Amino acid sequence: MTTLNRDPRSVEKWHQEVDILVVGLGVAGAAATLEATAQGADTLVIERAGGGGGTSAMSGGVIYMGGGTPLQIACGFEDSPDEMFKFLMASCGEHPDTAKVRLYCDGSVEQYDWLVGHGVPFKQTYYHGTSGEPPTDDGLVWSGPERAHPFCDIATPAPRGHVPQIEHQGGPLLMKVLCAKVEDCPAETLMNATCSALYQEPDGQIVGAVVEVFGEARNIRTRKGVVIATGGFVLNDEMLDHHAPLAKLCNMRVAAEGDNGSGINLGVSAGAATLNMSAVSISLPITQPWGLKRGVMVNAQGQRFVTEDTYYGRLGEQALLHNRGRAWLIVDDEIFEKPTYMENVAATGDTFAELEAELELPAGSLEATMSVYNRHAEKGEDPVFHKNREYLKPLDSPPYGAFDCTTDHALYAAFTLGGLRTDPDGRVLDPTGAPIPGLYAAGRATSGVAVGGYSSGLSLGDGVFFGRRAARAASRSL
Amino acid sequence: MTTLNRDPRSVEKWHQEVDILVVGLGVAGAAATLEATAQGADTLVIERAGGGGGTSAMSGGVIYMGGGTPLQIACGFEDSPDEMFKFLMASCGEHPDTAKVRLYCDGSVEQYDWLVGHGVPFKQTYYHGTSGEPPTDDGLVWSGPERAHPFCDIATPAPRGHVPQIEHQGGPLLMKVLCAKVEDCPAETLMNATCSALYQEPDGQIVGAVVEVFGEARNIRTRKGVVIATGGFVLNDEMLDHHAPLAKLCNMRVAAEGDNGSGINLGVSAGAATLNMSAVSISLPITQPWGLKRGVMVNAQGQRFVTEDTYYGRLGEQALLHNRGRAWLIVDDEIFEKPTYMENVAATGDTFAELEAELELPAGSLEATMSVYNRHAEKGEDPVFHKNREYLKPLDSPPYGAFDCTTDHALYAAFTLGGLRTDPDGRVLDPTGAPIPGLYAAGRATSGVAVGGYSSGLSLGDGVFFGRRAARAASRSL
Repeated sequence: MTTLNRDPRSVEKWHQEVDILVVGLGVAGAAATLEATAQGADTLVIERAGGGGGTSAMSGGVIYMGGGTPLQIACGFEDSPDEMFKFLMASCGEHPDTAKVRLYCDGSVEQYDWLVGHGVPFKQTYYHGTSGEPPTDDGLVWSGPERAHPFCDIATPAPRGHVPQIEHQGGPLLMKVLCAKVEDCPAETLMNATCSALYQEPDGQIVGAVVEVFGEARNIRTRKGVVIATGGFVLNDEMLDHHAPLAKLCNMRVAAEGDNGSGINLGVSAGAATLNMSAVSISLPITQPWGLKRGVMVNAQGQRFVTEDTYYGRLGEQALLHNRGRAWLIVDDEIFEKPTYMENVAATGDTFAELEAELELPAGSLEATMSVYNRHAEKGEDPVFHKNREYLKPLDSPPYGAFDCTTDHALYAAFTLGGLRTDPDGRVLDPTGAPIPGLYAAGRATSGVAVGGYSSGLSLGDGVFFGRRAARAASRSL
Repeated sequence: MTTLNRDPRSVEKWHQEVDILVVGLGVAGAAATLEATAQGADTLVIERAGGGGGTSAMSGGVIYMGGGTPLQIACGFEDSPDEMFKFLMASCGEHPDTAKVRLYCDGSVEQYDWLVGHGVPFKQTYYHGTSGEPPTDDGLVWSGPERAHPFCDIATPAPRGHVPQIEHQGGPLLMKVLCAKVEDCPAETLMNATCSALYQEPDGQIVGAVVEVFGEARNIRTRKGVVIATGGFVLNDEMLDHHAPLAKLCNMRVAAEGDNGSGINLGVSAGAATLNMSAVSISLPITQPWGLKRGVMVNAQGQRFVTEDTYYGRLGEQALLHNRGRAWLIVDDEIFEKPTYMENVAATGDTFAELEAELELPAGSLEATMSVYNRHAEKGEDPVFHKNREYLKPLDSPPYGAFDCTTDHALYAAFTLGGLRTDPDGRVLDPTGAPIPGLYAAGRATSGVAVGGYSSGLSLGDGVFFGRRAARAASRSL
């Protein structure tokens, strides 16, 4: 028996009727709720936990925005929606959704203003030192591989990581601010509540849902729509086994309790298609501080496999998905410094031959790799992976060391990128591309802007963006 | 509006009522039909084309079977279900379905007998010369990477490619024999007919389908079940874009007209989950004849990336999916011979330096790779990718050549492996793992034995196996 999908004609009593039911109060759900009520829709938002926030509140708070935001301008960076579009289309995986990415870029300045208008503070300062989450309260950071090959040749780089003003971790502040706005808005909030089933008419229309609160089931009728904003599925081991088994090698899963795929499964049971279920974001923050980008990353064949100066999410994807997390960062004495997030030195030696023996790499393999690398680095070149000149120097000052980037020793942080197939208005689509009437979704319960390559801030970013669009579309419907 | 799913209460007239409707008459549909009628089920099988056969009839006819089939024994090979199981679990991708693989191996000898019993001829002889489809009428061939690293250390190798007795291409013969059996069996066959919608009760039960014949829609009521056996989706450009965009770089798609994903989408519209939608089989038959396995395959970084003596499907996967089809096979004068399926020489030279310059590889990269390779090959070793000693020799007899394995010049043949999630009895499952009552599927409309790594014959093989099991399960139901 299918269990997630119910016939509304079986309902004896509707406990409540609303225009829009939002399922999940992370950043996508908060944005959807605020926009729905701004449109005048009678809105109920439910949240599995005892309070709002979800995985968004556990994140670094980076929001990927650009195209010339006031913060970018204040920090002296030029950007345009077109350059942002070119970058995202090139970096977000093999076949990003053009329409979504275009809207996301064109609407990014407005999205920044909307966040500021809702009280999210951004200090008008730029932080250079690391990618992603600055240890300071600065507002703007590099959060993707914009300046690394090949993207630097495809689009004019600009930093697009926008971080709420607080030291260390912006996510809790972001969600504190947005949840307070949700509390103040006309929407009703219901905590400790999950959605266990959708009510679907025989013609496909979603007309309500079963909401469970402390074991009690309530039938909620929706006049305009249900917005699924529940998050991804990185905590669902069975789904990971099926769709992204390598992610299980990661020693950190970026998730709140709710990232169990429940919302995706609700949609699928209603006939929705899914997209990119095997796509994952894998962070391997080994090149923090950035001086370590001068190191050389090798795999179990003693070969390089990535340009070391790229975004740490790309390092993680390449190391985990293509090399099963068998990787080491080679440094020499001149560039040696302690990495921020890991420090296990797997081997040291006065020659690369010693290093490769200690690492049990094939004899001669690391020597050959380093010989080619050094030969070109001396000229400030890297024809193999096109690392930028800024981080190129021959590794020729022994002793040499190898930082351990294997999954047993290095921080690999994973979350899922695949989910429900939606259109740019957050309508959940069936496999023919037709909307399932009354069903909307946003955030990591959907396949969003990043379909295979990630930059920090894209999940908070597209959660807000398509959460708002879903709420507007649902408000217009019927 | 969802369009693929209909309410049976809207039907004014049922045109026909049967126990089981089989959709698609490729090998899975034929097996399902024959088994359904053997179980006494009143069966209708429909086929989009004017006659049966489908993609199965365009294939090489290799069927992956083992565990000690009479043909294996006649050819002097030892095999067991356990060794077959170990091999398939290790080689079929990251997380194969243990229960399916176990049953498939344990039932393989019986499956061979069933095929023979249905008139499929297998000559009791072994062909050594190439993988997959022998140019002779021999019955048994190596059709996967059983003897290559790491599988040769995981399971005792045995050839498991069983090919119907005919020169060149066994697929047409296989389907001619099985379709004749279908004609002779009590099932009704209906050609030029597609299934455009399923009838689904509000409780999820599938109770029939809309079948379109020359523009006329017929409502078929099913007492026991619908078996989807429609094939994969490699001809559906939009689905490829969404799920397996790199497959579009291939210059050959292994498919009959019907491989458009229609059956997968019927299932999804009924609430089914899909699995491994991004998995594809990519053949790159560059190492035929096998003497070319002594060559060295490199990518655009001048690096090796695979053991060259592995199955050509693995060469294709690695070259296309991890290197975007930028690959060359390096040979020397001693091992030079004309490849069977491609012959474009991209570069020649008396030194590797000349070769790498002509191929525009990074200076020194190919030299370094070949230096490491030759150093070990002299000792009959390959610590980098573990090629077997049999194919190891230093490439040291100039002139050297590079066969062009890029997607512009080499044969890359693709088909899809992902599809509906089914249990080992062919029941189509929703995302919670619960069966959708009355709905079954088999063949490449489903995710089968291979979830990411392929061996020739697994699609015909699991199509027959789970087609039969689906029919038996459907016959028992209700």
